[in-house]
Amino acid sequence: MTRTMATIGTKWKPIIIYTLGLKKQRFGLIHAKMELISKKILTEQLKELEEDGIVKREAFKEMPPRVEYSLTNKGLELLPILNMLTEWNAKHQQGQ
Amino acid sequence: MTRTMATIGTKWKPIIIYTLGLKKQRFGLIHAKMELISKKILTEQLKELEEDGIVKREAFKEMPPRVEYSLTNKGLELLPILNMLTEWNAKHQQGQ
Repeated sequence: MTRTMATIGTKWKPIIIYTLGLKKQRFGLIHAKMELISKKILTEQLKELEEDGIVKREAFKEMPPRVEYSLTNKGLELLPILNMLTEWNAKHQQGQ
Repeated sequence: MTRTMATIGTKWKPIIIYTLGLKKQRFGLIHAKMELISKKILTEQLKELEEDGIVKREAFKEMPPRVEYSLTNKGLELLPILNMLTEWNAKHQQGQ
């Protein structure tokens, strides 16, 4: 099990991937959409997702500086797998 | 993210689920098929999988005692999701 493959089982990364979805988004918006995550943790998690080739980071030399995040193709391909896992979880939580 | 949902991202549980597959198997055989896992860790992991409703444990009152493990329906439904995740991982490892 590689770290990349384990992404799907971590606390925050699946939520970050869902939050990004098909759109390119600024850090502040991602943080605003996600509940209960600190900026420090979100920054760390985005950095790891970037290292794993799941998230693309683009920095624009503007004033004030603008940084946007989006899913790579590799990241986009995780979306249907995450959907299946979420459906599986929801189905079996109802039964408990 | 529940512990059940995180199952797919752990080190050993996906391998245990694959190893069980569609068959009912005794502890000794599962341990023999899996490489590098200690009996202690395998026992712990099987116990957690049983608590999470993914694995079914059957103990037979024979001499010597016989214990068999198999996947529940909930566990069987994880197999195609694990397959997708494994294919996703293999595809993107080739590209690195």
